[in-house]
Amino acid sequence: PSSARYMPRAIAVAQNHSYWASIEADVHDHLNKAIQIRPPETVFEPMHYLTFAAPTTAASALCVAACELVGGDRAEALAAASAIHLMHAAAYAHEHLPLTDKSRPESKPEIHHKFDPNIELLTGDGIAPFGFELLARSMDPARTDHPDRILRVIAEISRACGSQGMINGLHKEEEILDQYSRFEFVEYVCKKKYGEVHASGAACGAILGGGDDEEIERLRRFGLYAGTVRGLMEKENIPEIQNIIRKLKDLALEELEGFHGKNTDLISSLVFEPSLCVA
Amino acid sequence: PSSARYMPRAIAVAQNHSYWASIEADVHDHLNKAIQIRPPETVFEPMHYLTFAAPTTAASALCVAACELVGGDRAEALAAASAIHLMHAAAYAHEHLPLTDKSRPESKPEIHHKFDPNIELLTGDGIAPFGFELLARSMDPARTDHPDRILRVIAEISRACGSQGMINGLHKEEEILDQYSRFEFVEYVCKKKYGEVHASGAACGAILGGGDDEEIERLRRFGLYAGTVRGLMEKENIPEIQNIIRKLKDLALEELEGFHGKNTDLISSLVFEPSLCVA
Repeated sequence: PSSARYMPRAIAVAQNHSYWASIEADVHDHLNKAIQIRPPETVFEPMHYLTFAAPTTAASALCVAACELVGGDRAEALAAASAIHLMHAAAYAHEHLPLTDKSRPESKPEIHHKFDPNIELLTGDGIAPFGFELLARSMDPARTDHPDRILRVIAEISRACGSQGMINGLHKEEEILDQYSRFEFVEYVCKKKYGEVHASGAACGAILGGGDDEEIERLRRFGLYAGTVRGLMEKENIPEIQNIIRKLKDLALEELEGFHGKNTDLISSLVFEPSLCVA
Repeated sequence: PSSARYMPRAIAVAQNHSYWASIEADVHDHLNKAIQIRPPETVFEPMHYLTFAAPTTAASALCVAACELVGGDRAEALAAASAIHLMHAAAYAHEHLPLTDKSRPESKPEIHHKFDPNIELLTGDGIAPFGFELLARSMDPARTDHPDRILRVIAEISRACGSQGMINGLHKEEEILDQYSRFEFVEYVCKKKYGEVHASGAACGAILGGGDDEEIERLRRFGLYAGTVRGLMEKENIPEIQNIIRKLKDLALEELEGFHGKNTDLISSLVFEPSLCVA
């Protein structure tokens, strides 16, 4: 039988882009409605601004795509995808906070700060719990049989975005002193900073879409490899990194074997095109 | 019938202290087990340190006491009480972060910083989602009928500790320029920074302990008044503030009417003794 690993070539680039763009638009709308600027404006204006100032993350889009891949409705994954974006946006705001800290890597790109540092700090602190609030309130009262799925998703996202996942990656990142010699370490950091959030996004989408345990675990591993690849693609384009990327791409596509249809090809495109969703 | 409002005098101070101390010890144990220092130590050591560096909050203890007041088991409230402490500890760490920010109030007390600012920033960012992870994983598999209670508690805590509650109070706090003229504003800030977290703690305890809707809402209002009082007790000891405190104490005790037994008296002590639990 034909392996899923070779199918992405059948999908036109434009079709890929429109699929991911439609997901991003739906997540954006969901967030935009949830964070309407309203009183107190001193809270909601910076919250709205910093939520959308962060580049989009493929981890959020992958959550929706995984839900659809296992046969779920897109609407079931939008709260989780929004929560993932919010955690990412909070981390992004704090990553760029001007601290009186000599130990911070100098290489962090400067970004435009619209608000005082203390407001940006507090707003990041408010954005993260808001993601969990959105999720906890997302249960459709008409479908009261699935509160356990939402609890599982909250546990997944809190772990992936917390001290043992993304935050650990941000800790470790500061230790990358010599990119040209410690490739395994670079891979580890990308796995923590990007891989685990993508893994969790994919697993959450599969859980919410009603996937079975094998589908959930396969999509989780696909997300881990795909997210790590996407992090590595931002690093120096040198042969050693290219080798790791090639290895991880193969592993990612293997996990898609057993899934069928156009959505499988669309999902696989995440490991080929860094331009699909930013990080 | 005798009103709950006059009963606290029947309880010896020592008995009050031992009740709250036993709750604090149980929450501490629960957290200590959850955040054992283990690899990666670079993550768990600062997480453990900053979790316990923050003074305890009565909001956390109130969660346990409210659960017991409506007839629940203490064990049912420990994860929620721990999550509240974690949100409070994360905010405390960030409140004391050295920022390059002239707009920050100069009055913030200096604390000892054991770690680099960036580590303290990231650790705070990891502590908050860890609270939600603890909660989401707290469901006893033997009692599968209550995932909806835990979801409700997650929504409560995320809102009270987020941009519309505690974080809003921290935003606003910086606007207190003249404590001697704007008492309503001082009350508003204390309500946001302390009141709503205590309200949410009390409501969560009642939800988890199986309280009915009236019990939940009465305890929520008790928590709102009691928490605001406790915040105000830290302010200047002037007549106008004392008047607000007196008014809020009466309102708090009114909410306890209808509850009976020794636990009612113990809970009421929160508005009389600022030394019971720190904030």
